[in-house]
Amino acid sequence: MFRIQDNLDYNMPVHFGGVRLVPGTVATQRATALVIGYETAREELERYIPGEFELRIPEVQVMFSTFSRINWLAGSCYNLINVSAPVRFQGKKDQIEGDYTLVTWENKTEPILRGREQTGIPKIYADIEDLHEMGSYFHTTASYEGSRFLTMHFEATGPMAGGERDRIQAALGSMNTLGWRYIPKINGPGADLSQFILFPQRMEVETVLAGTGSLQWYEMTWLEHPTQNHIVNSLAALPIRKVTRAILAEGMVVLDRMASRAIE
Amino acid sequence: MFRIQDNLDYNMPVHFGGVRLVPGTVATQRATALVIGYETAREELERYIPGEFELRIPEVQVMFSTFSRINWLAGSCYNLINVSAPVRFQGKKDQIEGDYTLVTWENKTEPILRGREQTGIPKIYADIEDLHEMGSYFHTTASYEGSRFLTMHFEATGPMAGGERDRIQAALGSMNTLGWRYIPKINGPGADLSQFILFPQRMEVETVLAGTGSLQWYEMTWLEHPTQNHIVNSLAALPIRKVTRAILAEGMVVLDRMASRAIE
Amino acid sequence: MFRIQDNLDYNMPVHFGGVRLVPGTVATQRATALVIGYETAREELERYIPGEFELRIPEVQVMFSTFSRINWLAGSCYNLINVSAPVRFQGKKDQIEGDYTLVTWENKTEPILRGREQTGIPKIYADIEDLHEMGSYFHTTASYEGSRFLTMHFEATGPMAGGERDRIQAALGSMNTLGWRYIPKINGPGADLSQFILFPQRMEVETVLAGTGSLQWYEMTWLEHPTQNHIVNSLAALPIRKVTRAILAEGMVVLDRMASRAIE
Amino acid sequence: MFRIQDNLDYNMPVHFGGVRLVPGTVATQRATALVIGYETAREELERYIPGEFELRIPEVQVMFSTFSRINWLAGSCYNLINVSAPVRFQGKKDQIEGDYTLVTWENKTEPILRGREQTGIPKIYADIEDLHEMGSYFHTTASYEGSRFLTMHFEATGPMAGGERDRIQAALGSMNTLGWRYIPKINGPGADLSQFILFPQRMEVETVLAGTGSLQWYEMTWLEHPTQNHIVNSLAALPIRKVTRAILAEGMVVLDRMASRAIE
Repeated sequence: MFRIQDNLDYNMPVHFGGVRLVPGTVATQRATALVIGYETAREELERYIPGEFELRIPEVQVMFSTFSRINWLAGSCYNLINVSAPVRFQGKKDQIEGDYTLVTWENKTEPILRGREQTGIPKIYADIEDLHEMGSYFHTTASYEGSRFLTMHFEATGPMAGGERDRIQAALGSMNTLGWRYIPKINGPGADLSQFILFPQRMEVETVLAGTGSLQWYEMTWLEHPTQNHIVNSLAALPIRKVTRAILAEGMVVLDRMASRAIE
Repeated sequence: MFRIQDNLDYNMPVHFGGVRLVPGTVATQRATALVIGYETAREELERYIPGEFELRIPEVQVMFSTFSRINWLAGSCYNLINVSAPVRFQGKKDQIEGDYTLVTWENKTEPILRGREQTGIPKIYADIEDLHEMGSYFHTTASYEGSRFLTMHFEATGPMAGGERDRIQAALGSMNTLGWRYIPKINGPGADLSQFILFPQRMEVETVLAGTGSLQWYEMTWLEHPTQNHIVNSLAALPIRKVTRAILAEGMVVLDRMASRAIE
Repeated sequence: MFRIQDNLDYNMPVHFGGVRLVPGTVATQRATALVIGYETAREELERYIPGEFELRIPEVQVMFSTFSRINWLAGSCYNLINVSAPVRFQGKKDQIEGDYTLVTWENKTEPILRGREQTGIPKIYADIEDLHEMGSYFHTTASYEGSRFLTMHFEATGPMAGGERDRIQAALGSMNTLGWRYIPKINGPGADLSQFILFPQRMEVETVLAGTGSLQWYEMTWLEHPTQNHIVNSLAALPIRKVTRAILAEGMVVLDRMASRAIE
Repeated sequence: MFRIQDNLDYNMPVHFGGVRLVPGTVATQRATALVIGYETAREELERYIPGEFELRIPEVQVMFSTFSRINWLAGSCYNLINVSAPVRFQGKKDQIEGDYTLVTWENKTEPILRGREQTGIPKIYADIEDLHEMGSYFHTTASYEGSRFLTMHFEATGPMAGGERDRIQAALGSMNTLGWRYIPKINGPGADLSQFILFPQRMEVETVLAGTGSLQWYEMTWLEHPTQNHIVNSLAALPIRKVTRAILAEGMVVLDRMASRAIE
């Protein structure tokens, strides 16, 4: 019969065996990241920020990334759209500045499962187009079963240099990703597990393009997306007051799950 | 700021709101199910059965289902391949006969997330072809990124009738699906949540075809499937001694999450 | 070296061999067809009808079909959206009433190639959702790379019976599909082959549901669909004056390519 | 009513309008190309080479390409697997050395249609994985409905330089792609159009990696691929005597349809 080994790490299904976690073993992947940040209405955004956090700036950051050369996926690829807000965690023990993950869409299931269960990143599925590129012009689209909910556009003006580039490199080079890992009771309501989590990540940025960016959210009906329309519509309802950042960065992303931890 | 409401049921991302669980609200879906069961080697199969269970018969049951008219997905569709073994749970409080879920592949992420987090069904992703049908001949294929790991074939001989049909209807009409909900520690090893779960399900069978069935597992390398090759290879290594059952059933499947519970 | 055999039928690539055409060998497939017809502006629709035809009624007919059990695809499945107008071909030799195919979208390439090259049906690719079904309510969506261009909705009121059903069965039981097979000069402009074609088809209707239907076209930009936006926008610009027909039919479709012919 | 304009270029569906061909307007796209060539048996390969050609060397060349930044697709992407043999066209008027296209698989329909109808490249559909990359190791897979028919592997040893690189750049910088455009009679056998075509192409190579490569063809049954199994099996039956070339090149591909022409 199957018995768990205490020194191994398991995911469902558990009974086919676990793996030994080797300190220093990190997930690495090549990333092309289109980041568009915008100012919104503080009170409206705060409706989606748990009370344990403080919103530092009323800003939404949307990052599209196309990942390739993913080491733990044998060199395979996938796309992501990450939506976050800059916060400060005000815990009893921990005081941390970082980015609270409102939602992460990915077009591959495997990293969705790992992200949710291991580190509390609220990943869900969407169809996400590869980055379309024409000269200095870039665009992409996220959709579900044929209904679009997000488009992003970017026009590069040129490589970023000097202090501006250094700031971007520093910011992407050390990101405090914050998530909320929540596993419901089997026959609900209530939680069997509910924790805030810090998952430090870094992107070793090689090139950064400056430019002008824009994005548009599209409302969805229940028929169009019965399980996520409330998420999309919440984001679509936040006003886009001013685009505060638009860059296209390339580099390696390094994820060290063993550096993640629950925060209190 | 966002606050959880005690009477609502949440999934990640939590902060966009939860739903009220209304007793009697069930998930319903139309199913065409191809079931092929086969005798295998007891000791080899027992390697994947947790010690809390007793293997009733050394048999593997593989069920392909194509679901449509799924009420909670606004009428959408997806396919599933479920692999289980007949067991008896020998708990301190509960003694239950049912089917222990070795693994469930689905080709849609949304039900994978619900199944894992809410009821401990070890669902993972695969590409699963719709059921190909030519006259009385049926076949399907499961694969990942272009590499096949399972094919199923069925040739119908005719509608099942009489006592044989009654037994199938009774069996599918009341299924004790057993799972193992396991959420790892954030930076592992070990579990933050580990429970065995009973999730009763039923299929209201309308038609059943008898016939001859066969299936074949294909081994996968790490390159072909870095995250699931150990699962596929474990199943591929189990000998297929004799096909003990091969049927094609149609009907409505009813899932009542609120009837699920942890077992001890 | 490879030589063509005069008695065989070939498709590109030719040199791997052809097949013998056996009279009486037909393509068969199971179909669930949602048909929505609507009255539009005669002059606007006539802009897309070649001068060799006469528009019988200023009506657009949109038929979504999901095909399964396709004999020549070994039992596989695909979806189609066919847009046509009722015409009379006024040739020198042929006078034929039928439906001129404005465009056919399919979500599988193989039948697209056959349709275009063998019988002049102007098939092109789109992502087409399976028919979503909830009780008596049905809907589907066609899109391209995440941008939707058509939605169709249908609410069934009940089975059609009597003379109305007989008329539908007769109409679907003998369809004169008309196409324009056009192969451009290699380095254009002009045609190397340009013919109007009659491709008789029939659906052996088993059940018909009456109901209320609606559809909506969505305009597309060049960025959203660089090769088909002019097609979608032409259709989207046609006014929907009145829905004249909305039915959901099931049955077998029979296609006999050898009954097709050029018309003059 | 719709009338063709003599100065425009059309594709099916014709009646939504054509485009003006502007000399000098070329298709451009970014390519990462994995090229693996191998020696095979002359007589067996010649079975697939039309008599109008002479096989220069008994060699099969398989080129996987991932295209991005495709200008005529608004910056979108797709993958290709091209299989060709080095030939000399021995026509009445034309004597041309080039590569005869045995088959081209692509995972997007739009370029398949253009290739077949405009320039006689025998393109057909397959699922083709993006290039998986791990350090210096690359692999990809082509499949259809879950059944694999080709895998390619490459291990880079380092950048190619000097005369070897010059030769690759020269070879890819001017490719005489040869195709056979064949449109069958409507209710065939026989052709309504049958021409050999020269379609000059060029890749402006920027980097080339040398390395060791291998590939494997997998036979398919009629059930696995009813419309292409004879193609795959013909290629799978050709012996791989020696890999004669294995490179990974990056650069821009330029296609000028107006430079293509029928050859006699």
